[in-house]
Amino acid sequence: MNYRYSSRLGSFSSSAVREILKLTQGDAIISFAGGLPAEEHFPVAAVSEAFQRVMAQGNKALQYGLTEGYLPLREALCGRMAKKGIRVTPDEMLLTTGSQQAIDLLTRIYIDPGDVILVERPTYLSALQVFRSYGAETVSVEGDSDGLDLADLEAKLMKYKPKMLYVIPTFSNPTGKSWNEERRRGVLELCQRTDTLILEDDPYGELKFGDASLTYPSIFSLAPQVEGSCVVYTSTFSKTVAPGLRTGWVMGDADIIRNLARAKQAADLQSSTLDQQTLYQLLAHFDLDGHIEFVRKEYESRMRQMAGLLREHAWPGVSFEEPKGGMFIWVEFAPGIDAGELLKTAVQHGVAFVPGVSFFSEDPKLNTARMNFTFADEAGTIEGMNRLSKALEKFGALV
Amino acid sequence: MNYRYSSRLGSFSSSAVREILKLTQGDAIISFAGGLPAEEHFPVAAVSEAFQRVMAQGNKALQYGLTEGYLPLREALCGRMAKKGIRVTPDEMLLTTGSQQAIDLLTRIYIDPGDVILVERPTYLSALQVFRSYGAETVSVEGDSDGLDLADLEAKLMKYKPKMLYVIPTFSNPTGKSWNEERRRGVLELCQRTDTLILEDDPYGELKFGDASLTYPSIFSLAPQVEGSCVVYTSTFSKTVAPGLRTGWVMGDADIIRNLARAKQAADLQSSTLDQQTLYQLLAHFDLDGHIEFVRKEYESRMRQMAGLLREHAWPGVSFEEPKGGMFIWVEFAPGIDAGELLKTAVQHGVAFVPGVSFFSEDPKLNTARMNFTFADEAGTIEGMNRLSKALEKFGALV
Repeated sequence: MNYRYSSRLGSFSSSAVREILKLTQGDAIISFAGGLPAEEHFPVAAVSEAFQRVMAQGNKALQYGLTEGYLPLREALCGRMAKKGIRVTPDEMLLTTGSQQAIDLLTRIYIDPGDVILVERPTYLSALQVFRSYGAETVSVEGDSDGLDLADLEAKLMKYKPKMLYVIPTFSNPTGKSWNEERRRGVLELCQRTDTLILEDDPYGELKFGDASLTYPSIFSLAPQVEGSCVVYTSTFSKTVAPGLRTGWVMGDADIIRNLARAKQAADLQSSTLDQQTLYQLLAHFDLDGHIEFVRKEYESRMRQMAGLLREHAWPGVSFEEPKGGMFIWVEFAPGIDAGELLKTAVQHGVAFVPGVSFFSEDPKLNTARMNFTFADEAGTIEGMNRLSKALEKFGALV
Repeated sequence: MNYRYSSRLGSFSSSAVREILKLTQGDAIISFAGGLPAEEHFPVAAVSEAFQRVMAQGNKALQYGLTEGYLPLREALCGRMAKKGIRVTPDEMLLTTGSQQAIDLLTRIYIDPGDVILVERPTYLSALQVFRSYGAETVSVEGDSDGLDLADLEAKLMKYKPKMLYVIPTFSNPTGKSWNEERRRGVLELCQRTDTLILEDDPYGELKFGDASLTYPSIFSLAPQVEGSCVVYTSTFSKTVAPGLRTGWVMGDADIIRNLARAKQAADLQSSTLDQQTLYQLLAHFDLDGHIEFVRKEYESRMRQMAGLLREHAWPGVSFEEPKGGMFIWVEFAPGIDAGELLKTAVQHGVAFVPGVSFFSEDPKLNTARMNFTFADEAGTIEGMNRLSKALEKFGALV
């Protein structure tokens, strides 16, 4: 039959980049492309034990649960927030299928076709896709290594009257950069003044490198209170425990949370009861902070290794900044290099990354790439960087 | 701040009914309201064992997986389908967070605001909510106890040129009724001829009562082939294994499945890897068919108990049909009774059901109710029906 898809289908269309990256799933390719944590460090024994505790509680563990999510897990998360000085109640929190779902649900209840959403330049590609699928127009705000450019933000708040600003202020995807506190406060103040909702996406905030005394307060925590706050905050267990449990959370004004829950009920009724209860038992009986500390150090050493190799290889015209946390190094190649084209050669040489083009709302910088340093181990990273070096040589000879 | 919600938020608004049903969560209320399976029969030991098998396979079990879902589980499901004579490949199947998500994703990729979706009268309330949230207009087609009225369907296909028809032909929610084969073939033929996509929702098909030799072939299985089929089929493990694992699947033409996967990537990247792998191990090592056989018999006996009590109480003007499977009895009270108002009195007496009003696309029959018979045990059902009897007496005296 002749299928008559919706007009929004176009916004979900597969990109050329995604088609190439599909080729990288095999073992033959060393991938710096995905945002995958190091699976050898997943706390498998602790997850197993937590699951057994859930099962020991009887059959109710497998029944339908609340759309808002398992209450004891929300309470435990509120406890973790309190330790960071964030006072939030379970009514101000919704559990989601990863933080991706929080982005989708908030857009669903808040954005009408034609609304403007301001974003960073560059920003998380799957957020851009969600925004566009609901008919939003995305406009990017300039920034530097300290965060958003407040003057440009103010100008664009005036010009576009956006409904929402989407940011990843701590160890950004894709750039790895982290805003200083002044920029966080400045952005909060401007958005408060203009009734602009901030969606603060914070999947990487716990993966901090270097000086432990340095802190990066979330914008959410800088707002005077959660009630009536212009900030909605989302995070996830995908990077600190494991992605396979697909559990994230979103916090904000109770009215927004109630509306998100209604949208979630239509979307999937609720996320996995079993995964949420397992995470609750894990938080209760496992030293998650100790585990995060361990993973942080491991990721910092992997980041330093990749940064060191970038310096050693010293490809002509390449530049990057060492991130202060997270999972990615953002690389700029020499101006003439189209990283999308380079990827094709790289995959032939057995290595992959994500070309920067997909992370831009408009005017993409084609000579950029996102390199993940958390997934590959030491030997893999050395070999992958050697392969990339050969690919660049070959590619340079071709262009 | 002044929140500026999207116009589609209205479609998610909480109904008065839902607000009342929130009161029924405590133990003091006997609930015939939810569509909850009997939790005392969940195969907890088998789920536990399956989980341990997953964990024994190592850390990859907790890593990100494919948006389409865990391939071995899709293959195993294809095997189960083959036994029913349905030939489908893993490329023609997507795993979802329950079948609710399949309804949401298909609507997202297929429906534009203003498009018409035909539905049964009455039909699943959360499907109506999803359709409206994407701006669809829903129009219901008349039917009788054998299924949709083919003449009315044909007339409405001509009049409204709908993009989609949504049906639950086997042990419907809320009516429990099951279409005969002639109606299934008739609907398929009419929709094929008019390029109308059929979304066949089949969460209850395995819960068949009575003569085992009776079969209810899915409309999906009656189509000549999956490629180019006008039928998209969704089902779930929520009713046969347990809802807490939140795993459903959707089958259809490979192009539709590819597009659903793109939409799912934006919605939540993927469903729980852990739950999908656990279900795979369960299918491989547990006699699921034997378990379903056991649950069927148990549910049939619960249905007969509730039907018997309905006959015994013999409330003035009440009528119902015994369902041939599923989880619900659809009750019509005397014409003057507004079941929404009755519910308020019922909750005061410690019993709950769902008033029929929410299941109608238009012109609701206010004197109807959906009664679930699978959740409460024998003693609970007797007590609940006694309470409902008292509520009706009191209510009758009031009106």
